[in-house]
Amino acid sequence: MLIDFSKILQFECQLDRENPIVVGVSGGADSMCLVDVLAQEKFPIIVAHFDHQLRSESSSEAEIVYRYAQERGIQYILGSEDVKTRAEMQRESLEEAARNARYQFLFQCAEDSGAQAVMVGHTADDQVESVLMHLLRGSGLDGLSGMAYCWLPNAWHAEIPLMRPLLSTWRRETLAYCEQRSIPTVSDPTNQDLSYFRNRLRLELIPYLETFNPALRKLIWQSAEVLRGDRDLIARLVDDAWRQVLVKQDAGYVAIDIDLSRDFSLGLQRRLMRRAIAQLRPSLRDISFDDVERGVEQIREMKPFAKIDIAAGLKLVLEPGFLWVAEWDSDLPTDMWPQVSSELSELEIGDTIALQSGWLLAAEKTEKTAVRFEPEGLDEDTNQAWLDLGCIKPPLLVRARREGDRFQPLGMQGQSQKLSDFMINQKIPRRARDRWPLVCSGRQIIWVAGYRPAESVQITPQTGQVLKLSLRRKNAEKQ
Amino acid sequence: MLIDFSKILQFECQLDRENPIVVGVSGGADSMCLVDVLAQEKFPIIVAHFDHQLRSESSSEAEIVYRYAQERGIQYILGSEDVKTRAEMQRESLEEAARNARYQFLFQCAEDSGAQAVMVGHTADDQVESVLMHLLRGSGLDGLSGMAYCWLPNAWHAEIPLMRPLLSTWRRETLAYCEQRSIPTVSDPTNQDLSYFRNRLRLELIPYLETFNPALRKLIWQSAEVLRGDRDLIARLVDDAWRQVLVKQDAGYVAIDIDLSRDFSLGLQRRLMRRAIAQLRPSLRDISFDDVERGVEQIREMKPFAKIDIAAGLKLVLEPGFLWVAEWDSDLPTDMWPQVSSELSELEIGDTIALQSGWLLAAEKTEKTAVRFEPEGLDEDTNQAWLDLGCIKPPLLVRARREGDRFQPLGMQGQSQKLSDFMINQKIPRRARDRWPLVCSGRQIIWVAGYRPAESVQITPQTGQVLKLSLRRKNAEKQ
Repeated sequence: MLIDFSKILQFECQLDRENPIVVGVSGGADSMCLVDVLAQEKFPIIVAHFDHQLRSESSSEAEIVYRYAQERGIQYILGSEDVKTRAEMQRESLEEAARNARYQFLFQCAEDSGAQAVMVGHTADDQVESVLMHLLRGSGLDGLSGMAYCWLPNAWHAEIPLMRPLLSTWRRETLAYCEQRSIPTVSDPTNQDLSYFRNRLRLELIPYLETFNPALRKLIWQSAEVLRGDRDLIARLVDDAWRQVLVKQDAGYVAIDIDLSRDFSLGLQRRLMRRAIAQLRPSLRDISFDDVERGVEQIREMKPFAKIDIAAGLKLVLEPGFLWVAEWDSDLPTDMWPQVSSELSELEIGDTIALQSGWLLAAEKTEKTAVRFEPEGLDEDTNQAWLDLGCIKPPLLVRARREGDRFQPLGMQGQSQKLSDFMINQKIPRRARDRWPLVCSGRQIIWVAGYRPAESVQITPQTGQVLKLSLRRKNAEKQ
Repeated sequence: MLIDFSKILQFECQLDRENPIVVGVSGGADSMCLVDVLAQEKFPIIVAHFDHQLRSESSSEAEIVYRYAQERGIQYILGSEDVKTRAEMQRESLEEAARNARYQFLFQCAEDSGAQAVMVGHTADDQVESVLMHLLRGSGLDGLSGMAYCWLPNAWHAEIPLMRPLLSTWRRETLAYCEQRSIPTVSDPTNQDLSYFRNRLRLELIPYLETFNPALRKLIWQSAEVLRGDRDLIARLVDDAWRQVLVKQDAGYVAIDIDLSRDFSLGLQRRLMRRAIAQLRPSLRDISFDDVERGVEQIREMKPFAKIDIAAGLKLVLEPGFLWVAEWDSDLPTDMWPQVSSELSELEIGDTIALQSGWLLAAEKTEKTAVRFEPEGLDEDTNQAWLDLGCIKPPLLVRARREGDRFQPLGMQGQSQKLSDFMINQKIPRRARDRWPLVCSGRQIIWVAGYRPAESVQITPQTGQVLKLSLRRKNAEKQ
């Protein structure tokens, strides 16, 4: 055991011998073994014992730990909380409340003492139990790969790691260690209480599973070890993909680029959906398989829909180019699109006006020779339009749409159509239509900014001077 | 169910309606349901029934399947083998023998009929059982992610996929389907025999696990579904990394670039080790956790060693730059290094001689002005050496080392040293030393090819003509 242990301290924990380590010590063989090995190896440790006030014996257990520390001149800190009351107040289960209170205490100690790490005595047996617990509750790779030797950032602290260097040591080895070195230990009688899920798993399920395969514990431990490597590989892959597809993010919403996401494999799409949901609901337990599948279906099949409610008060919104995951009642932003800031602005030729969110709209006179456009009169870059200035009466007006607006787009044969039909056909997102910038000459719409110019102002062999309209964003920032 | 089913046929199987599908039909509700849905959907199918000759009822079961096919005008093929005898002959377990005989028959039918796929009726229940079976036997991501809807290349064929479109349909749904449509089914009495591992798992273990969580089947099915996506992500990642690190491969060995591999994460190193072993032992079940760990330790810690035996008749060999996984008794190649092909060759100035495996050694006279070398007289490219031709007596001799050889390397102050010490210091691999090319002028070694020239022939301000020696490979192929 000790060979493995020191390898783990070296490779996985990378500890120094300068800064203290806060060791959570219940008094059981696991944590007593942990603290004793660390003391032998001359690490500067602080023994932190937490009294959950759940059992009458708990203060005498604290006493055993205290005496062990005092005899060896190790710093000792006692924490205490009425966990039962906490559970009621915070609506946590008793197990959750105990766990949360204990870890908050440990990380508070670590912060107060400038510690390099918090350590706890979870063993290989705890690892196996944890994997099986996750399996029974439904879990992906993260749960099935169990606990890590070093966890940072963790659920309690962004900078102080939680370390579990005994994860490759079996419980019986810690018992044998304590016995051999005559280290006093306490045994928690609630560990035998079968009304706890975890105890039933340890005392009943695992022995039963061992009738199928006596090597079960070791095999599950090895699986977790290997899966953890896979988990890290995937985490890096997902990080990269996430950076590629993330378009916008705020407290109330996340938007991903749906066109990019569509090219990814199903596995990666699922991971990205899960990540999007996790951004708004960091507690992963809330993310159901079905919610993820519903999101992925949107990425894959692109069925048009307005809004889908998913669990945990979130909604999915699909728009051309984006898939939003958002708080059910949050207003989604419009600042990735050009939107007019007032009902009506004048745009002099040679001038630029500001729209919302850094978008700029410019009009300039130019020579016909400078015109780069397709035979049909359409520029490839739809954020630029080239019009026959002779057909236009300055100043130009820039405005939002109005009841009854009609538009005759260039290159689409036929009569003028309702502007709203044009917007729907062009897939301008519904939310953006009301304030979409329209450039007008008098009452006539000559350019739906970023889309088509009007047929009536197209450049012909007879065109003399050319009007160039262009739409751009102030900073070439990622939207 | 049928909605899911046709989605799977569309997205996962991508079948056409031109080429036949060979459907393995035992006569149980699962396969009868499968074949009936496919017939309804107008896929061209061939019903293939295999009689394992293990039970007396088996021929009457074949009769039920035959009658079903005949009534509907579906092509029917009957296969048969004495599986018990096969198991004894091939030293397979009865389950293995039955499985192998059955799939060989199905893929033979598929090949004979030019089929686009072989399909079998595994259900969501089979998926859950398969995952649990892998868990109990010890498994990584591949086992825990269960069976795929479409498997290609598979264990039986490189080009015809094995498809399991019912993997998201529960067994009770297939039973209900058959009952509703009055489709006759047979039930195999050995499915109740608890002496089979799989039956005990289905009849005892799963119901017991459901006392911990009634939703267990669904949750495990969902886990497998998600893990399969992760498995595919990792497979692609490992493929990329494998292409990077693979240096040499043959029937008897695989060599990976250890310096590149060292930069990878532990998870990826494990995957690469497993891949290296799998190249020689394609049956993954043989690859133990410990063997993989031993290999990874070599990558990470670079403890010098000659050879380590790992399981399944394989050895690990560590050499500068390479980690070999090889058959225990195989000779490793030396063709990535320059090796002399005869004891002694003459090398005229202006000539090139061939060494082994496409390596070439050239000598040419050159002007001092063309010399590109560091002040110390050492070229950065150690495959080139620039020497003072005035100190050299042509013709040059190229030979292997001899007992008693000494060498005084350029730029390493001091006396000459034993050539063998120089080779050890320079980490020339042991296997390559005996035939490493040495360029000599008379009895003196003036260049250990690819390493340092001799001090005595170094270029000085007094040097007139320069001798350039160079070592290169005929084709710039990857070694």
